[in-house]
Amino acid sequence: MSGKVFLIGAGPGDPEYLTLKALRVLRDADVVVFDRLVSPEILAMVPPDVRRIDVGKAPNAHAVPQDRINAILVDLAARGLTVARLKGGDPLVFGRGSEEAAALAEAGIAVDYVPGITAAQGAAAATGIPLTHRGLACGVRYVTGHRARNRPLDLDWQSLADEETTLVVYMGVANIAEIADRLTAHGLPADTPVMAIANATTPREQRLVSQLDRIGADVALGGLEAPVLFIIGRVVSLYRELPDCLPVAAMLAETRVAGHG
Amino acid sequence: MSGKVFLIGAGPGDPEYLTLKALRVLRDADVVVFDRLVSPEILAMVPPDVRRIDVGKAPNAHAVPQDRINAILVDLAARGLTVARLKGGDPLVFGRGSEEAAALAEAGIAVDYVPGITAAQGAAAATGIPLTHRGLACGVRYVTGHRARNRPLDLDWQSLADEETTLVVYMGVANIAEIADRLTAHGLPADTPVMAIANATTPREQRLVSQLDRIGADVALGGLEAPVLFIIGRVVSLYRELPDCLPVAAMLAETRVAGHG
Ligand SMILES: C[S@@+](CC[C@H](N)C(=O)[O-])C[C@H]1O[C@@H](n2cnc3c(N)ncnc32)[C@H](O)[C@@H]1O
Ligand SMILES: C[S@@+](CC[C@H](N)C(=O)[O-])C[C@H]1O[C@@H](n2cnc3c(N)ncnc32)[C@H](O)[C@@H]1O
Repeated sequence: MSGKVFLIGAGPGDPEYLTLKALRVLRDADVVVFDRLVSPEILAMVPPDVRRIDVGKAPNAHAVPQDRINAILVDLAARGLTVARLKGGDPLVFGRGSEEAAALAEAGIAVDYVPGITAAQGAAAATGIPLTHRGLACGVRYVTGHRARNRPLDLDWQSLADEETTLVVYMGVANIAEIADRLTAHGLPADTPVMAIANATTPREQRLVSQLDRIGADVALGGLEAPVLFIIGRVVSLYRELPDCLPVAAMLAETRVAGHG
Repeated sequence: MSGKVFLIGAGPGDPEYLTLKALRVLRDADVVVFDRLVSPEILAMVPPDVRRIDVGKAPNAHAVPQDRINAILVDLAARGLTVARLKGGDPLVFGRGSEEAAALAEAGIAVDYVPGITAAQGAAAATGIPLTHRGLACGVRYVTGHRARNRPLDLDWQSLADEETTLVVYMGVANIAEIADRLTAHGLPADTPVMAIANATTPREQRLVSQLDRIGADVALGGLEAPVLFIIGRVVSLYRELPDCLPVAAMLAETRVAGHG
């Protein structure tokens, strides 16, 4: 009798953003296979008697290749174990969950998905910046800013440069200057506001408020720890209207931006 | 001392998709103000001693206008109550959460957000259709298919007709035929697969697998109960590769589509 694999979204970091189902599955699992994006706060929710396997990509070590991760999952489930495959955010948003599911299906192993709060939603909830808002953004778009080695960024700039859509860039920290340049070249106003947010919803959260023609330079100054997400668009202008007191990082970011102006 | 309002995402329907924070806030609240999109299964999670106020739009009754909802929230919080404002999905994705937050901020009332699984993620987890997938979709886009009365659909068709991006249409059931027509007119292949999913993640879930040149006719046949979400794009082609058994509704949908072919 083979086991089962649950492809689980752990959310962006705050352990309270786990879903009830994610917590239940973690507690019932025999083994948890987790990524680098899963926060220590979330790992602390895994019961101590559940075995843990870290397939995360350590910053200066070789990544565990996807094929190998697939093989580990198949192997564990084939031994009859209930496997909680825990991923940052949502498993089906830049999470390669469907690649793992395909490998498991091929091996005849049952899969179930547990959705998670994706980084964009975590960033929105943390900052109060809405992803859509009447009059400012009639939709939202998630893209990856990652490029394959030595390849140009393969994005449809004309289509992305849309003032009415909130643009959220995942995996964009290395290429944000180029992304911002291309967007302005294709018509987005240079003063379109941008929020960079690192480690959203964790105690290590950092925020930087900037605009399209400065975000590259601001990020190049350093100081943001991975993972970093960018929210680009008019909705970011609502940030200062937040009712609650802002954390210190936000005030620093605002001061810094003010210093530029 | 005025109270506080939590703008909470209840997720798409499955009560296990509530976050831990959402459940905690619901249990600590004095009053829950909820929408029509909040499923009965989720309302059953609210403790019996918490007061409930329904501001949902009944199908054949007048909607509670947004201004009135804002006033109710301000009034409750001004009386010192802890208010759980419960919305379907995520409060910051087509949820008007930021409009309510602005009204509360103006009245000097503290606000906190609790993100929720948005309908697109619920649909993805339920069906196994990923929102992004290497080689099939390098990004995902959420748009509204709603139009103001007697106004044309105001969408940037050229930008939307992108084979590499998964397109998710919220509030689109009334206009899906026109949306599909425009997308094909702007270059999306007529056989681009489409999944219509109603009441995703609830016991009332219905699925219909179709393609761009047939979805309008399929939906016009009736049978889908609101709310309905559309996922358009190559990723829908992964649907049949799902490892698990599918619910009956899905098999019916597949049969029906087969009957068309
Ligand atoms: C491989 S993608 C995984 C996305 C994940 N599946 C999700 O739904 O959020 C990794 C990227 O997600 C973003 N990310 C994930 N967690 C984040 C967090 N807590 N704060 C900021 N960005 C985050 C960053 O852009 C990072 O480069
Ligand atoms: C006003 S929008 C609210 C969206 C919500 N804030 C969210 O994040 O999912 C309403 C639309 O959401 C979609 N929707 C919400 N819940 C759904 C469900 N369980 N199944 C299918 N569609 C759903 C439908 O497209 C519906 O017309």
